[in-house]
Amino acid sequence: MADENLSLVLYGKQDLRLENRPIPEPGYGEVQICIHDVGICGSDVSYWQNGRIGDMVVTKPMVMGHEPSGVVSKVGEGVVSLKVGDRVAIEPGVPCLTCRQCKTGRYNLCGKIKYCATPPDHGTLTRYFVHAADFCFKLPDNVSMEEGAMLQPLAVAVHACNRVNVHLGATVLVCGAGPLGLACLLTARARGAGKIIITDINEDRLKYAKKVGADHTVLAGDPQQTARVIQDSLGGAADVTIECSGAPSSATATGGRIVLVGFGPAEVRLPLLSAQCREIDIFGMTTFANSYPAALAMVTSGQVDVRQLITHRYRLEEALDAFEAARRREGVKIIINCQRK
Amino acid sequence: MADENLSLVLYGKQDLRLENRPIPEPGYGEVQICIHDVGICGSDVSYWQNGRIGDMVVTKPMVMGHEPSGVVSKVGEGVVSLKVGDRVAIEPGVPCLTCRQCKTGRYNLCGKIKYCATPPDHGTLTRYFVHAADFCFKLPDNVSMEEGAMLQPLAVAVHACNRVNVHLGATVLVCGAGPLGLACLLTARARGAGKIIITDINEDRLKYAKKVGADHTVLAGDPQQTARVIQDSLGGAADVTIECSGAPSSATATGGRIVLVGFGPAEVRLPLLSAQCREIDIFGMTTFANSYPAALAMVTSGQVDVRQLITHRYRLEEALDAFEAARRREGVKIIINCQRK
Amino acid sequence: MADENLSLVLYGKQDLRLENRPIPEPGYGEVQICIHDVGICGSDVSYWQNGRIGDMVVTKPMVMGHEPSGVVSKVGEGVVSLKVGDRVAIEPGVPCLTCRQCKTGRYNLCGKIKYCATPPDHGTLTRYFVHAADFCFKLPDNVSMEEGAMLQPLAVAVHACNRVNVHLGATVLVCGAGPLGLACLLTARARGAGKIIITDINEDRLKYAKKVGADHTVLAGDPQQTARVIQDSLGGAADVTIECSGAPSSATATGGRIVLVGFGPAEVRLPLLSAQCREIDIFGMTTFANSYPAALAMVTSGQVDVRQLITHRYRLEEALDAFEAARRREGVKIIINCQRK
Amino acid sequence: MADENLSLVLYGKQDLRLENRPIPEPGYGEVQICIHDVGICGSDVSYWQNGRIGDMVVTKPMVMGHEPSGVVSKVGEGVVSLKVGDRVAIEPGVPCLTCRQCKTGRYNLCGKIKYCATPPDHGTLTRYFVHAADFCFKLPDNVSMEEGAMLQPLAVAVHACNRVNVHLGATVLVCGAGPLGLACLLTARARGAGKIIITDINEDRLKYAKKVGADHTVLAGDPQQTARVIQDSLGGAADVTIECSGAPSSATATGGRIVLVGFGPAEVRLPLLSAQCREIDIFGMTTFANSYPAALAMVTSGQVDVRQLITHRYRLEEALDAFEAARRREGVKIIINCQRK
Repeated sequence: MADENLSLVLYGKQDLRLENRPIPEPGYGEVQICIHDVGICGSDVSYWQNGRIGDMVVTKPMVMGHEPSGVVSKVGEGVVSLKVGDRVAIEPGVPCLTCRQCKTGRYNLCGKIKYCATPPDHGTLTRYFVHAADFCFKLPDNVSMEEGAMLQPLAVAVHACNRVNVHLGATVLVCGAGPLGLACLLTARARGAGKIIITDINEDRLKYAKKVGADHTVLAGDPQQTARVIQDSLGGAADVTIECSGAPSSATATGGRIVLVGFGPAEVRLPLLSAQCREIDIFGMTTFANSYPAALAMVTSGQVDVRQLITHRYRLEEALDAFEAARRREGVKIIINCQRK
Repeated sequence: MADENLSLVLYGKQDLRLENRPIPEPGYGEVQICIHDVGICGSDVSYWQNGRIGDMVVTKPMVMGHEPSGVVSKVGEGVVSLKVGDRVAIEPGVPCLTCRQCKTGRYNLCGKIKYCATPPDHGTLTRYFVHAADFCFKLPDNVSMEEGAMLQPLAVAVHACNRVNVHLGATVLVCGAGPLGLACLLTARARGAGKIIITDINEDRLKYAKKVGADHTVLAGDPQQTARVIQDSLGGAADVTIECSGAPSSATATGGRIVLVGFGPAEVRLPLLSAQCREIDIFGMTTFANSYPAALAMVTSGQVDVRQLITHRYRLEEALDAFEAARRREGVKIIINCQRK
Repeated sequence: MADENLSLVLYGKQDLRLENRPIPEPGYGEVQICIHDVGICGSDVSYWQNGRIGDMVVTKPMVMGHEPSGVVSKVGEGVVSLKVGDRVAIEPGVPCLTCRQCKTGRYNLCGKIKYCATPPDHGTLTRYFVHAADFCFKLPDNVSMEEGAMLQPLAVAVHACNRVNVHLGATVLVCGAGPLGLACLLTARARGAGKIIITDINEDRLKYAKKVGADHTVLAGDPQQTARVIQDSLGGAADVTIECSGAPSSATATGGRIVLVGFGPAEVRLPLLSAQCREIDIFGMTTFANSYPAALAMVTSGQVDVRQLITHRYRLEEALDAFEAARRREGVKIIINCQRK
Repeated sequence: MADENLSLVLYGKQDLRLENRPIPEPGYGEVQICIHDVGICGSDVSYWQNGRIGDMVVTKPMVMGHEPSGVVSKVGEGVVSLKVGDRVAIEPGVPCLTCRQCKTGRYNLCGKIKYCATPPDHGTLTRYFVHAADFCFKLPDNVSMEEGAMLQPLAVAVHACNRVNVHLGATVLVCGAGPLGLACLLTARARGAGKIIITDINEDRLKYAKKVGADHTVLAGDPQQTARVIQDSLGGAADVTIECSGAPSSATATGGRIVLVGFGPAEVRLPLLSAQCREIDIFGMTTFANSYPAALAMVTSGQVDVRQLITHRYRLEEALDAFEAARRREGVKIIINCQRK
């Protein structure tokens, strides 16, 4: 059938279905994109397993996926920056552009942002997707479609490293060696971090982290002992901590900085007094703003090789298997190819 | 007796004594100061009542007081910046100047800093005190000795407002209307804050806050309701929160900033996920660095009138009464005059 | 005639005419505003006298005026933030919102910005004007329409003080005591500047500067001697220089900062080596971004009284007289009232 | 003779002599260092050829050299951080530590700084040198003595890249492919710069620049045409310009930043209006502060290979030949080995 648009749709908690949906048409300032690759993120799995993340609840069918790349297949009115055939990475959030947060450059904090696969907005695990042209980034010839999809987690890492200001020669602690932790590792390295240490509760992930460039790896266990091992390895506490595990660590140096990338429980018990007395700064963050250009520059120039984070590949028709693998935390990054065979 | 040097000495938990001590002589780069005024701080009361603050324990007799002003009475070798008779405010912490924290301008984080009335270093509630000349600030004629003493809490407020970057037109929430909270209110105003709201559990202090310039005051109670009242008063959450109460509030706007001035318990339960998702930054702080010049400039120019925070005055001979009043949380700032009658 | 829309139109060099024009209708996201007050700026006079400023040339009739306030008279489709009868200040530049500069919060650098009374875009010296609702700011009851018009020069001053980071207690040198210089003086004061010194070649303007709060004034003459007088008055060079005269001064302290507000000649001879060796930073600037909210907050709270800068008032019917007065540099700010009598 | 201390001494303009000098003994807080390697800098050649640089005039004999490494040979009283036999890089400037610039972390701006081989302070082209222990940096085993000497130009590059904030993915223009320009190239790369283009008037240097990692090189000629070629190569103007040639270029993007590393003439004609309108920031700089730790971290971790900048090696006995080679601008960096044979 000519309008086939196979999509992976979440109907509610643990109810994920592959189905055909109408092909959307681009409006003013929009492009239609023939999706090529989409990465699976931990949040996708959370929505699937729990039907929600915090206050964000899936109340009606929602197409999954928010780490996409594709090829422009139609161009809406008013679009001059793109043409049919352009290979693009898709920045998945489209903000209002006119609120105070948007005007000051922090559009990720826009109260009206539409973000792919965040209820109620549809995502990109589909054949054809429509998006604002201003949030599509043309890929140079030397950047593959899979790398284009990987720009999304890389943009998270870029934002995390910006927030926490990873400086030249900084010692960096990354907590969590999943895809985001490893993307932060690669990005901190690209910014000139000195020594980078990474922790996880999974030895396989630590081996992977070593392979992609960690100076030290630590199997996380008892918090106090983990902190001791970290400090012994670095010769002191870390200048900068990038927390991707949902469990804030306490091996940050006096005057240091922590950014919270991974989501933990709603409330946590924190040794706040110690952090306060040592003038440690704690930065929150949510997704990113203005980070695709730097992510793309790093991949284009070859500074960062994101392909090494891709360990599993599936086709859209096998998306349920891909999600099962993600649920079992297999490998690092799982990519789903959405092209028709 | 010629060398009389009456001093208020803490011997341990709830053991505070007035006694004579030898008059110290200035060494190289030091000056001897005839102390004029010294403010009492909440931490003085804590040391007195508990014999400790956290890890810092009074294990041998320690002279109290760290908010001092005085007149130079002797000048040590190598001192060119001061002469006998100069009226000075004394910055109470003297760092090593050569560690990495010192060299980068964050000398309050120096691991070797000597801070008045922090064990084991003696404080300034005494007739004669010796201090590094480089940490004494000459007072212009239009700045009184009491104002000189008040530069210390004002320097804390300057550092707090720097850390959290109170910007022009910012809406500011100050939690706690004690001397530090009020000093932060005055300083935030001097930096051009738009609306300032202040909370406390004590109605008298709120009345005082209103008198010294708060736009709104809120009696703190149930956290959720307090937050609601704050937001109703400001027409939204605060851009900046200055936490001086030891009980972090939750009325900070998306993209906002919090600085922790007051010390709370060692561990606190924090709604960290909400802070994280809204990119709220949490800044620790301890004392200050490079803040006396701005504090002095504000008082000299008349931008800030710190005298209005002084509600009680005692003589050194009455220091025990002064501490009792401080323990009962009477008034706002209590000043002890250390001059001989 | 019902659709009367009297406007001040520049046809070219020294050819300024009052004429009726069609009343514009608001499009999507726009409002029609019944203009109340418009200030005259030095750049208006330059366009009139020279038909151009640098590369920007008046090639077809252009309505003048870019410092406006008014009352919403019609509301276009899609506008929810404003309604008929709302009193507003109009931020005169409307950027594209989607280019890299806009997305990062520096929308004043947008290559596609439409700026009132900058060729070829029409300005606001007219009865009825149409503008993007997102760039109109509702005025509280205690802010007058004239103050609303004054938000524009005040926003320039806000941006200047942001760029150069006027800090608490900073000594500030303002070169030039025209409307912008004085707005910078008021804004620097609101940010907590310590001592402020202002220079001009006109003694009357200096008297005015003294009246609105300058600590020192200096009649500018021979550059070297002027610098000497400045340093003598401040007790040293200035931490921050705000250059509004088109003639960069050289009394900035080691490690200090200069912002260039006033436009000088295309090329200037600069003692760059001295500036470099003393790590002086020189910041360019053009108009402003995200500055109306702070300007409005300052006026609303009463921190800054911009009314004292208004020295002359005319009606739209007398606009040519008003421009003649501006050309003769009479007074400080000249305001034109655009209401029908 | 036991106290032999061969040194290269500048007696005045074009009067450079090798002679024996007394061996200095370390005072309190100082160490005596047996110098190993010292790089020659352009400023050394300027002092030799002209007897001065600007206001700094050689009025009495001065030992040359300020890019040193060595081995601790004696330890003064009070030194605990170093012991005899430690291999160190020597940061050549020792500030007062107590002035306002020092206290705020900008000690390179200290008015009392003593800087090696800057009149009247002696430098390090000698066998034995005495220096403040706090400004010596212990070298790890994997960092050679030559690399230790190279930390000085690398520290200049670190400071330059800090001042101008080379950000992840930034396009960078480096003007001048001498040792400092190349050190800036390496450092900008380590901070994650995207594309780096470098200009020079010497084709050999450009070839060298290409070899050490420049993406593009441009033979500098007519300024306008050079700017055009730069923009064509980068696909737009540069985000960041690092000026090491003494001749500021004009290919910096709107909203971009320029740092002035190389010294040009006392006065220059600048297209300041264009820079201003495009909000370009111009940062001065002189030497560096707090830059040795990052320089050392980069060399230790292998991020930057400074050895590739060393093209010529001489012994102290051949120092006059080395300076002649430097005067003829041979190669890139010339290193003098000061060990006794």
